[in-house]
Amino acid sequence: MSKKVAIGVDIGGTLTKVGIVDREGNLYANTSFSTTMHQEFGDYLDELKQQIETLRGQLDFEHEVLGTGVGAPNANYYRGTIEHAANLLWKGIIPFVNEMKARFDVPTYITNDANAAAIGEMIYGKAADMKDFMVITLGTGLGSGIVSNGELIYGHDSQAGELGHVVIDPNGRYTGLGRRGGLEAYVSSTGLKRTVYFLLADRMDDSILRDVAYNDLHGEMIMDAAEKGDPIAQAAFDMTGRILGEQLANFTTFSHPEAYFLLGGLAKAGKWIFEPTQTHLEKNLLPFYQGKVKLLPSGMLDKNAAVLGAAALVWKQHEG
Amino acid sequence: MSKKVAIGVDIGGTLTKVGIVDREGNLYANTSFSTTMHQEFGDYLDELKQQIETLRGQLDFEHEVLGTGVGAPNANYYRGTIEHAANLLWKGIIPFVNEMKARFDVPTYITNDANAAAIGEMIYGKAADMKDFMVITLGTGLGSGIVSNGELIYGHDSQAGELGHVVIDPNGRYTGLGRRGGLEAYVSSTGLKRTVYFLLADRMDDSILRDVAYNDLHGEMIMDAAEKGDPIAQAAFDMTGRILGEQLANFTTFSHPEAYFLLGGLAKAGKWIFEPTQTHLEKNLLPFYQGKVKLLPSGMLDKNAAVLGAAALVWKQHEG
Repeated sequence: MSKKVAIGVDIGGTLTKVGIVDREGNLYANTSFSTTMHQEFGDYLDELKQQIETLRGQLDFEHEVLGTGVGAPNANYYRGTIEHAANLLWKGIIPFVNEMKARFDVPTYITNDANAAAIGEMIYGKAADMKDFMVITLGTGLGSGIVSNGELIYGHDSQAGELGHVVIDPNGRYTGLGRRGGLEAYVSSTGLKRTVYFLLADRMDDSILRDVAYNDLHGEMIMDAAEKGDPIAQAAFDMTGRILGEQLANFTTFSHPEAYFLLGGLAKAGKWIFEPTQTHLEKNLLPFYQGKVKLLPSGMLDKNAAVLGAAALVWKQHEG
Repeated sequence: MSKKVAIGVDIGGTLTKVGIVDREGNLYANTSFSTTMHQEFGDYLDELKQQIETLRGQLDFEHEVLGTGVGAPNANYYRGTIEHAANLLWKGIIPFVNEMKARFDVPTYITNDANAAAIGEMIYGKAADMKDFMVITLGTGLGSGIVSNGELIYGHDSQAGELGHVVIDPNGRYTGLGRRGGLEAYVSSTGLKRTVYFLLADRMDDSILRDVAYNDLHGEMIMDAAEKGDPIAQAAFDMTGRILGEQLANFTTFSHPEAYFLLGGLAKAGKWIFEPTQTHLEKNLLPFYQGKVKLLPSGMLDKNAAVLGAAALVWKQHEG
């Protein structure tokens, strides 16, 4: 009997990651290639097709591909498009799913990476038995995938779950798009770094981070510094976790999730981010939510979350 | 053929409103009685049963009651209970639905009044064709009912949609429960009144409201003053609408609704609340939401929204 598999594709500004995954989350083959290698979208898709065929050739068992799931910036799930993505070469509205149809005889589903991560949490992670939860991805920005009543919330035009843009302070940090105070300017790998620089300006403590230029500073250095007892690094994590905890408490008044799952580079900082977040989440919850909302590392944190999340779209579609 | 009807019951701290409604929203008979008349919950339910029987006796056509829908503070939809309601005489956890079963041979459904209002908007209001929308009730406090993917969001333990408690300023106004800065301290009939008092303290303009004691001031007086050109009253509406607009823009990043419907006393202030809210909603939306999110008066604004919303629970349950 041939084994059923799904193709997962994660399209980033720099790299496209591709893998073949089964229902249990086994990743049988995977690769990546430069997203910017092809100026023309058609050439890119031809490349993607060839990469997928190469991966399939590596499988030493009979298999049936059920579909292709794609995580991409500015993806519109309803229309199957990528629309005005600032981080990609292809401008305007790219009819992704339709163009895939011309090349593959299996269906393609597309959404943004945080939504794919939420579906991945249901299919491969820790949310298999949950009807109400959120995945918060903490990378360069803050992404979110929200599941209520067992279904991903896409919203009226597939743009729900943009919690990185919640304005937490109208006079706060610049956030891009001419705006100020968006959550991701504080809570993300970039936000953590900005907070280090805010604290270096605000406080007078010695810190090993005073020897690092902004463009050289990255999250792992801040975590290493925190581990070594650096007061600025530790305070930066505390402030990041406090703001995240306060905002997760706010988000709870919206959809009352059973759990928040943290994913992405900053989530890998472990206790440095989880402990202050947990403290300030619980402290800021309304009394009737207290003790009822879990904060957990994503079940995908040590896996190829991007490819698995994308592949999960296919299983979710098949299982309704 | 007998006509199918539903019973709608709205339990408020002071009054319980009861009515008999058909699928088209015709209210055939209705009444109200004092919620505080009976200290014992069992006596209250006996009274409710008698009131319903009296109303049914007034119908001059054959009818079949499909069920009873109840809107009540602190209602838990999943468990069919009213839990620790501060505004009601019955303390602890009241097994509402189970107690109803002992008295009625039709099913009973219970939720809080803002959730009932959202279901009412689907069944009787303007949201019949919408899958993603929110109803914001602006009364003494701010309530919210959120619909995504065509379903009300109850959340993990039936406490979703408490947007009146979103903290918009951690150093802001006292909100009860030992908290500060909750949205409803600004955006509600009470919030409008508090804003008038803030402005009377902050500014030096003459105002007819300077002759009114806090306990004598109510929403209609503020609207009358605004109509007469009173600068404090007008500024109070502007500030209330600005804060509501800013927060609706934030909420949009959550579930990207097609429309926000405003209901309740403050919503009846018409342009005074809708115009500033609309301006600041649109101004604060992320570019890809602009022009895509409607702000509308609830379709229930001129109806008996409380009773119709409660009755709508029955039809929603029957129609799946």
